[in-house]
Amino acid sequence: MTDGIALSPRPASSALLTDHYELTMVAAALADGNAARNCVFEAFARRLPEGRRYGVVAGTGRLIDEITRFRFRDEEIDFLREHKVVDDAALQWLAEFAFSGDIDGYREGEIYFPESPILTVRGTFAEGVILETLILSILNHDSAIASAGARMIGAAGGRPCIEMGSRRTAEWAAIASARAAYLVGFGSTSNLEAGRTFGVPTAGTAAHSFTLLHDNELSAFRSQVDLMGAGTTLLVDTYDVMQGIRNAVKVAGPGLGAIRLDSGDLGVLAREARELLDSLGATKTRIIVTSDLDEYAIASLAAAPVDGYGVGTSLVTGSGAPTCGMVFKLVERDGVPVAKKAAGKGNDGGAKAAVRRHDAQGRIVEEVAAVGGRPDVGEGDLQLQVPLIRSGRPHEVATLTEAREYHAKQMTTLPREARKLTRGGPAIDVDVYQA
Amino acid sequence: MTDGIALSPRPASSALLTDHYELTMVAAALADGNAARNCVFEAFARRLPEGRRYGVVAGTGRLIDEITRFRFRDEEIDFLREHKVVDDAALQWLAEFAFSGDIDGYREGEIYFPESPILTVRGTFAEGVILETLILSILNHDSAIASAGARMIGAAGGRPCIEMGSRRTAEWAAIASARAAYLVGFGSTSNLEAGRTFGVPTAGTAAHSFTLLHDNELSAFRSQVDLMGAGTTLLVDTYDVMQGIRNAVKVAGPGLGAIRLDSGDLGVLAREARELLDSLGATKTRIIVTSDLDEYAIASLAAAPVDGYGVGTSLVTGSGAPTCGMVFKLVERDGVPVAKKAAGKGNDGGAKAAVRRHDAQGRIVEEVAAVGGRPDVGEGDLQLQVPLIRSGRPHEVATLTEAREYHAKQMTTLPREARKLTRGGPAIDVDVYQA
Repeated sequence: MTDGIALSPRPASSALLTDHYELTMVAAALADGNAARNCVFEAFARRLPEGRRYGVVAGTGRLIDEITRFRFRDEEIDFLREHKVVDDAALQWLAEFAFSGDIDGYREGEIYFPESPILTVRGTFAEGVILETLILSILNHDSAIASAGARMIGAAGGRPCIEMGSRRTAEWAAIASARAAYLVGFGSTSNLEAGRTFGVPTAGTAAHSFTLLHDNELSAFRSQVDLMGAGTTLLVDTYDVMQGIRNAVKVAGPGLGAIRLDSGDLGVLAREARELLDSLGATKTRIIVTSDLDEYAIASLAAAPVDGYGVGTSLVTGSGAPTCGMVFKLVERDGVPVAKKAAGKGNDGGAKAAVRRHDAQGRIVEEVAAVGGRPDVGEGDLQLQVPLIRSGRPHEVATLTEAREYHAKQMTTLPREARKLTRGGPAIDVDVYQA
Repeated sequence: MTDGIALSPRPASSALLTDHYELTMVAAALADGNAARNCVFEAFARRLPEGRRYGVVAGTGRLIDEITRFRFRDEEIDFLREHKVVDDAALQWLAEFAFSGDIDGYREGEIYFPESPILTVRGTFAEGVILETLILSILNHDSAIASAGARMIGAAGGRPCIEMGSRRTAEWAAIASARAAYLVGFGSTSNLEAGRTFGVPTAGTAAHSFTLLHDNELSAFRSQVDLMGAGTTLLVDTYDVMQGIRNAVKVAGPGLGAIRLDSGDLGVLAREARELLDSLGATKTRIIVTSDLDEYAIASLAAAPVDGYGVGTSLVTGSGAPTCGMVFKLVERDGVPVAKKAAGKGNDGGAKAAVRRHDAQGRIVEEVAAVGGRPDVGEGDLQLQVPLIRSGRPHEVATLTEAREYHAKQMTTLPREARKLTRGGPAIDVDVYQA
């Protein structure tokens, strides 16, 4: 069917999705004999996006998957040789590279705060540093989407949300966004590849172009209902919304599944639409709203008769914070804590063990991170780090469905004020101390 | 070397990077007999990001490439059948689909304003609508990066800029970001895959972890210089910046290529660093600065003795505007202009032909878009749309290098005030009129 066309120039290895300097550092460390020193690296965020009270860890499952496949094939080695990125000794090492160390981290879907040690990589210097770019790309992106999405889900107060932002983010980032949105409680995505790759349920309605294609709105609605059944969602705002609703019920009958409103004052329109639908006997027909929604717009519609939200741009761009600003730092070398000293960007050296403590109602009261030891773990305390990779092999990695359930549970542990949409600082200050 | 490991779950076809509803619209239109109607779709932005005076078209080359490869293979068809996304007639059509229409558009690297008809797709309804998601994903993302990057290049005033944001955006979006940055004048990228896929020059220095790996800074510098030569860039701010500079020159000699400053008050530090380097005889050693730079921070360093900027987060997130908000609208059906009428989101129906007029100095004075005809083209006028695809085959698609040169030339046509970083409205209002 494809006449032998090479379908994509996209390479099958993710190994070159890596900053140039990671490989030259490996090469220099191999040459000077330090490459094999035992090292601990940690990924964490120094702060949350302005005004946010918590963040959500996402991308872990995707990351572990990519790490187990992070290989330099002949094609990658040839490119590096041809462009003289590193010397022959390093090329040899890269060709044989497969991560063989240990990775621990916060469970996917977990809540995090500034300084939470979200991911800990133990191995040689070379095998840790080489993963830096991939680790940060995935965690920074996916966690940004999840952190924004969690606020939207909270604002929606149980009404279903659909992720539909593919067109407002890079084409492959779109499927990672759909996955992160599903993780935090979105019910479905518009993106078909996210359905195939990650099993996220896909859904869709119709665009204005479909109505405009037809000679009139009735024909467009009839066509859609003929194919999809009366349970479909009809987009009623191409011409006149109220006439559109009348046309929709005329074609589909009072059993029409849903209408979609995509413009105008959604709160006012939803009320008028509800009245009209009820008066036409379509009392079960749902009202789905879309059109540049973010968590604030969703919250403002809480009292309106809305049955579902479709969210695009604001979700896939992290609602003002498209990256989490996580960093990946060497914190131990041969068991000795190390840290940069420079102004404003210092961090605590030494590998951290993190525990979260809860009150009798199960709400977080504190998070502690011990350097050089382990905090006491009592009843109601949560050990935040779990083994994700052991000796290079995936260990306790949750499926997306498990991570989604875990996230929903963890959201109930947030202090109440952390769920507010108003601007504020982190709900919890992580207490980092020397054990 | 890879022991037969499946290196990536990433599918070779981009056909499912598509919203669910595009395919159900195709299915419904096939069933009702409207799928083959001749249609014209246009991609355009209703507005620029807040405060911006112009935008830059990017992603065109990447898009044309993807469109020629947009195919539904057995794997994609099987997924759609299994998940009952569309009916058998539509599956049959999809399996045979290859875009056979025409696409015209602004040249890659071109400047655009609100309402500029950036991309025009002519074909049947089905073959136009099915490309919507891919077209918008690529143009919205790449143009957002290019639009932010162009302001940074302007602020840098001729000093070289390096793109190094891969860790702050999704892993595959990173290579598109690197490409868009190169398009608008960045000299290199840290991302190796962007080097392989698009031929963007790659570059890198070293991270703090490399210094921390070694027992002291001198050993780390010595290792790097041994491998890379004295022309390398040494990161001098892991401990004490001035001592770091002394160590760097001690190891590399006065012929040291560059130092990198990644923290602190960069303007003050650069001055002190310059004095110290000069006093050590390293008068040719360049000073590269990094650390959360955006166009404003770059501009504020104009008077400082800085020789190059490394830009990450702010570039790959579009400096506050991670998407351009472009939309893709059906504007003609069988030669008849069509448009949505709803509040706030209407657009002018009818395909547009766009021309830009310049003053005697070659600066833009107006852009006009005629509906249903072509504007007069006189001396000094520019026809903005060029044929990109004809009958499904790539036509006048510029290479990345050609687009980069074209962009540089076009930037000289901007009205002077459009280059200011202060907030303002679009430099030009596109005059859309009925011909």
